Amino acid sequence: MERIEVKTRESTELIDITEKLKEVVKSAGVDSGICVIFTRHTTSGIIINENESGLKQDIVAILNELVPKGTGYLHDRIDNNAHSHLRAVLLGTSVTIPIDRGELVLGSWQSIFFVECDGPRRREVYVQIVEG
Amino acid sequence: MERIEVKTRESTELIDITEKLKEVVKSAGVDSGICVIFTRHTTSGIIINENESGLKQDIVAILNELVPKGTGYLHDRIDNNAHSHLRAVLLGTSVTIPIDRGELVLGSWQSIFFVECDGPRRREVYVQIVEG
Amino acid sequence: MERIEVKTRESTELIDITEKLKEVVKSAGVDSGICVIFTRHTTSGIIINENESGLKQDIVAILNELVPKGTGYLHDRIDNNAHSHLRAVLLGTSVTIPIDRGELVLGSWQSIFFVECDGPRRREVYVQIVEG
Repeated sequence: MERIEVKTRESTELIDITEKLKEVVKSAGVDSGICVIFTRHTTSGIIINENESGLKQDIVAILNELVPKGTGYLHDRIDNNAHSHLRAVLLGTSVTIPIDRGELVLGSWQSIFFVECDGPRRREVYVQIVEG
Repeated sequence: MERIEVKTRESTELIDITEKLKEVVKSAGVDSGICVIFTRHTTSGIIINENESGLKQDIVAILNELVPKGTGYLHDRIDNNAHSHLRAVLLGTSVTIPIDRGELVLGSWQSIFFVECDGPRRREVYVQIVEG
Repeated sequence: MERIEVKTRESTELIDITEKLKEVVKSAGVDSGICVIFTRHTTSGIIINENESGLKQDIVAILNELVPKGTGYLHDRIDNNAHSHLRAVLLGTSVTIPIDRGELVLGSWQSIFFVECDGPRRREVYVQIVEG
């Protein structure tokens, strides 16, 4: 298993980790199988979509709209980040991508993003490759 | 790895791909493991739910409601389909299903759907089976 | 493949299944690989987040808010639980977690939840471990 460190700079932000993941897959030397990318944090998510700057801002905006910050959440009495957890639930904790001929089978427009929902922070993403 | 082609006819539409996937799993001849179903497109998703015609329309309706089309998204200045990308983020890019005794362990009401969010188009779904 | 039974008591409820899953992984004796946790039901989901009582109520509340019960869904004419299906679509049917040194690589705050969206019921969760 490999570990990728991600440093985020905003409270809510998409960080493209595609290139780092391609290197991990290349180093693994696995011809066919799957790659699981897993965040170990409860206020972040992993998603796949297009890396276009306007779209990245639209994704942040829709999270703000669907799950606004601080509208009376119970968890905010403990730690002022209920919205971050709730957004993470909608985004999901991991993605799984097939590997074929030694490479992730990403489509032309697909990038893999770490989605920070409670930054800025240092984060860890785990990458597990299974041959098959 | 196998590839399934999906032809969609509507802008937003659920296409049941369960039968095609069962054939792929049968052909693979794997007794135990997992099956990963992955869409290569950033304006579509893969989900598992019940194939009931009213419910399929309800799913389209809730996507329309949670992420309305064209309400000032930045990505719409580049390509008029920001809502399609945002819906894809909520749905997810893949599903992973256990295989037991040579078959997907789907519950009685579970069907696997390709969800078109920017159709009509020709689409490709990748299917990777890992023994284990 | 292993099966975990979950008994739910509320219509919408998070049940922490982390300890049961840790036992399954321990019994499997797999040093490195992945663990797939899959619900066989179309009105429930599997998520990973923090087990804090206020947050669990916040998650139920945001589901109620994003997908309210009974607002004219077509599926409600067949079976009065369209909202349960729609919430399940947003949550997802499975999670996949890397295994390293014989254990799930969960972060300090990560717990695995079965999310009941149409309870109370008896439910089944399937657990598939793949070495790799």
